Amino acid sequence: MNVVLNIAYVGTNYCGWQVQPNAVSVAEEIINAIKKITGKTVKLHGSGRTDAGVHAYGQVANFHIDTNIPAEKFANAINHYLPEDIVINYSYEADTMFHSRFDAVGKCYEYKIHNSRTPSPFYKDRVWRFDYDVDMDKVISAAKIIEGTHDFKAFMASGSQVKDTVRTVYSVDIKKDGDIITITVKGNGFLYNMVRIIAGNLMYIGCGKMTEEELCALFDNLDRTTGAITAPACGLYMKEVYYNTDDLKM
Amino acid sequence: MNVVLNIAYVGTNYCGWQVQPNAVSVAEEIINAIKKITGKTVKLHGSGRTDAGVHAYGQVANFHIDTNIPAEKFANAINHYLPEDIVINYSYEADTMFHSRFDAVGKCYEYKIHNSRTPSPFYKDRVWRFDYDVDMDKVISAAKIIEGTHDFKAFMASGSQVKDTVRTVYSVDIKKDGDIITITVKGNGFLYNMVRIIAGNLMYIGCGKMTEEELCALFDNLDRTTGAITAPACGLYMKEVYYNTDDLKM
Repeated sequence: MNVVLNIAYVGTNYCGWQVQPNAVSVAEEIINAIKKITGKTVKLHGSGRTDAGVHAYGQVANFHIDTNIPAEKFANAINHYLPEDIVINYSYEADTMFHSRFDAVGKCYEYKIHNSRTPSPFYKDRVWRFDYDVDMDKVISAAKIIEGTHDFKAFMASGSQVKDTVRTVYSVDIKKDGDIITITVKGNGFLYNMVRIIAGNLMYIGCGKMTEEELCALFDNLDRTTGAITAPACGLYMKEVYYNTDDLKM
Repeated sequence: MNVVLNIAYVGTNYCGWQVQPNAVSVAEEIINAIKKITGKTVKLHGSGRTDAGVHAYGQVANFHIDTNIPAEKFANAINHYLPEDIVINYSYEADTMFHSRFDAVGKCYEYKIHNSRTPSPFYKDRVWRFDYDVDMDKVISAAKIIEGTHDFKAFMASGSQVKDTVRTVYSVDIKKDGDIITITVKGNGFLYNMVRIIAGNLMYIGCGKMTEEELCALFDNLDRTTGAITAPACGLYMKEVYYNTDDLKM
């Protein structure tokens, strides 16, 4: 049976999604919980890695197991053994060939910014606090520049070895609710740190540290060092993973 | 100089507001921070205690000190030495006779409920998860019954020694945003656990475990044991403290 998990987590206390030696990962906690239920150590395929401190509303992972437990029951069963900062939202059985990573056709990430001079204890480790005045019109306008198919090499962490750096970003939506700015980015694939670098560039434009022209130039010069800082991990949320190309047209 | 602090905190890691032996309190953290700045151990007067796990958006406290530091500068200075789960929102100088507790004419609390069958890692320690179906019309209707001047003895933790249990509740507002229900209670004073007991009763009515008649009866029988459970501390937020009776008419 091929069981798919939809997973939410607060990434603060983990080294990230991926299992690593000498550090506690989200995947490891889930693998351990499945072992407590079934006695078996499964290979858990995530839709993609998240870094230390990055959160998820809807990470997707799958594993193969020979069991009589109905796939739908795994969510509650696993939650019973998980720490409270990881929750299986739901589980279901997929076709035996389904693979969370290889079958994904796109993803949606949220990046949250607390635009305030005063910190809030409630947002600790959950947002990027950015204390400059931000012109939201500038941010919304710049977001449109990022949408489309571009070479995003200047939006990839330097040192990353990926060769094909062309990606399609279907939408970059900007919302402000009180002093929280949410950047929602939907794309067919993301380079390492891409959403965090987009967030950094948009905030630099919003506060006047960078111009729209400088943003546009990044798609020509492909030079990471001419862009803004990489926004911190704690503001990033993996929101949704898409397996149907219809979902990408929204 | 009489310095007033407006304070936000996540109460999860504290024994409560009040200084206690062998436990870390919010007040103690602030007193220690003030000592690091001024070298002096001040007596910090809070507007009221909060229990372990209870949060605050706007707790108020004051202290007297002989210093050249402008009162407005204390907020940033104290924040520098505080853990990230406590933040001084702002500070100011008050009349020498001002006392956070004795001069308060009312308070506003929020109680947050996550009405969902599935837990969320993001709400851990921040809400009461209540997984029954809730009829919001019933909750809104019952909230109106609580408003007004009543003997709230049946809404006080049993064992509490307070003799005069008559209080005026100016408003009980109910809001639902997604799966989060927020109960906002404004009153001239609150008995021990009063807001948590109000929240428990309202949710019991919402899910059909209790009737409006049974709620009304609490104001006559004055019997705590006939009401609903006390909602847990983690859903409670001290929102605002009022020092001007005009604020209570809103």
